[in-house]
Amino acid sequence: MSMFAGVEMGGTKVMVAFGTGPEDLSAPVRIPTTTPEETLTNVERLIAGAATGARLLGIGVATFGPARLERTAPDWGTLLPTPKPGWGGAVIGPRLADAFGVPVAFETDVNGAAMGEGRWGAARGLGDHVYVTIGTGVGVGLIVNGAPLHGALHPEAGHIKVRRDPARDPFEGCCPFHGDCLEGLVSGPAIAARVGQPGETLSADDPVWDLIADYLAQAMATLTFVTAPERIVIGGGVGSHPAVLLATQRRLAKELNGYMPHLTSDEAIQAYLVRPALGDRSGVLGAIALAQTLFNSSQTTKAPDAPVSRGTPEEHPHDRRQLDG
Amino acid sequence: MSMFAGVEMGGTKVMVAFGTGPEDLSAPVRIPTTTPEETLTNVERLIAGAATGARLLGIGVATFGPARLERTAPDWGTLLPTPKPGWGGAVIGPRLADAFGVPVAFETDVNGAAMGEGRWGAARGLGDHVYVTIGTGVGVGLIVNGAPLHGALHPEAGHIKVRRDPARDPFEGCCPFHGDCLEGLVSGPAIAARVGQPGETLSADDPVWDLIADYLAQAMATLTFVTAPERIVIGGGVGSHPAVLLATQRRLAKELNGYMPHLTSDEAIQAYLVRPALGDRSGVLGAIALAQTLFNSSQTTKAPDAPVSRGTPEEHPHDRRQLDG
Repeated sequence: MSMFAGVEMGGTKVMVAFGTGPEDLSAPVRIPTTTPEETLTNVERLIAGAATGARLLGIGVATFGPARLERTAPDWGTLLPTPKPGWGGAVIGPRLADAFGVPVAFETDVNGAAMGEGRWGAARGLGDHVYVTIGTGVGVGLIVNGAPLHGALHPEAGHIKVRRDPARDPFEGCCPFHGDCLEGLVSGPAIAARVGQPGETLSADDPVWDLIADYLAQAMATLTFVTAPERIVIGGGVGSHPAVLLATQRRLAKELNGYMPHLTSDEAIQAYLVRPALGDRSGVLGAIALAQTLFNSSQTTKAPDAPVSRGTPEEHPHDRRQLDG
Repeated sequence: MSMFAGVEMGGTKVMVAFGTGPEDLSAPVRIPTTTPEETLTNVERLIAGAATGARLLGIGVATFGPARLERTAPDWGTLLPTPKPGWGGAVIGPRLADAFGVPVAFETDVNGAAMGEGRWGAARGLGDHVYVTIGTGVGVGLIVNGAPLHGALHPEAGHIKVRRDPARDPFEGCCPFHGDCLEGLVSGPAIAARVGQPGETLSADDPVWDLIADYLAQAMATLTFVTAPERIVIGGGVGSHPAVLLATQRRLAKELNGYMPHLTSDEAIQAYLVRPALGDRSGVLGAIALAQTLFNSSQTTKAPDAPVSRGTPEEHPHDRRQLDG
């Protein structure tokens, strides 16, 4: 039996699962995120354990950032300076490639989730879509022409500005960099700071949700105008709140005001801004999707009869440009 | 001698030039944009004339929109409903392909300019960059992983919201759809409506330029956070105004506030937000770059000895998916 390992690295926990898709997936195992050494050793143990009973074809990592995604960069597969103590410079991709000798895909958590929802979930079959998560922070992953958008590093679309009316919302935002950017206004901590209790404890008709929907609709309009996606999948504790999603859809129509010709009806907007279909598994499944894509491209760049790469030193996946396509 | 035709279609004029790059380019010929029939007949005459003395390998069109760019769509190469009288539904790509039997690339004007600046200009060698033009309107073209971003249709990033302080700028914007969106605040008509005279007649230290730079910096920060480009090339009458560019660079640094790790120094920002290098030829050159790319991909998808496509009915470029990569 062949399988891929999916590793979703979060700031507080790492989820690891094995398989080839949603119908063939082991129960995700949760590892607390402590030091890089301890955490990655635990990840390696899990993978090694699973690889004794099945053939491991590749590993996908979907990680918190900032992270170096560009495969040709000397520091590919590492984390960049981050507020999370000890994790700046942590070497993840090369370490797993060395340990297991298989291709390793290395992406942001949100690009991973976007790939997962695109392969098997709410954006299935699309090549241009966006995944947005609103929870402790705001993250945005973008797929363009079927591949994750990296750009110079990776997007940080949680930090775009939206308009705030201080008379309606005197809360000045909690982003340490930008104050009342999107994340500073709609993240879980922003909601808790504004109303004095966690969002989870508020009723569905609390007026704060209307405010959140207003900001989210502005942000969804900006994402729509800038990248014209075929669909936006919006998740996370705040993003999938039923009252928030409905109100955001309604307001998004007003923000666009008929300007995007494919998004002029309520039905079109409802099919455009949707909830994730893979629940809390979009991350690990996305990591597996990325590993599969990398594995497949490594196969097509070889002679048909060549053996599967085992990651010998002269051909580490991160040294081979063509795998990045 | 072999050459490509570059056709830049604007709302008031069409520019046509022939060649293979900036060092091998005929003087662009200007055709007024009248009816589709008259205008396209004039374009065809120019191309036919040039093709008598040289081998025409392909045609690139960079057009005003909205336009159907997706090559697999049944209405590929046409304009969608547009305020420009008579042009909604105009068939451009298939008409030129039929007339000349060569591959035809069909893009937005701004994606074309982005390709031109990426191939030969201010973003040379980059695979992820943005071209912004601020003139009569605001247009944004995006290159991601080396290819134009289309998404569901194409971006309309001129219509993103920015923050306006009514005490400082009481002008409520002139966008018929969104009032004070970016285009409604910074386009040439917005400047003229605000100060009562065309921007060209204002001195370089007129306070309106500071206001414009403020809005542009917000917009450049949004583009940076959402798509993380390696560079933004900003042109057009307003965008390349020297006072505006300098002030926008300065304010962009404040908007980002150190959040993007590669854009923390003044030098980095100055190398990041730059003027076009191809002047008013980025459009026609971009169209030629697009035609070249399409031609090259049509060559690599054939057996090495196959003749050049002459666009016989069974293999019109717009019927062949693989040409769209």
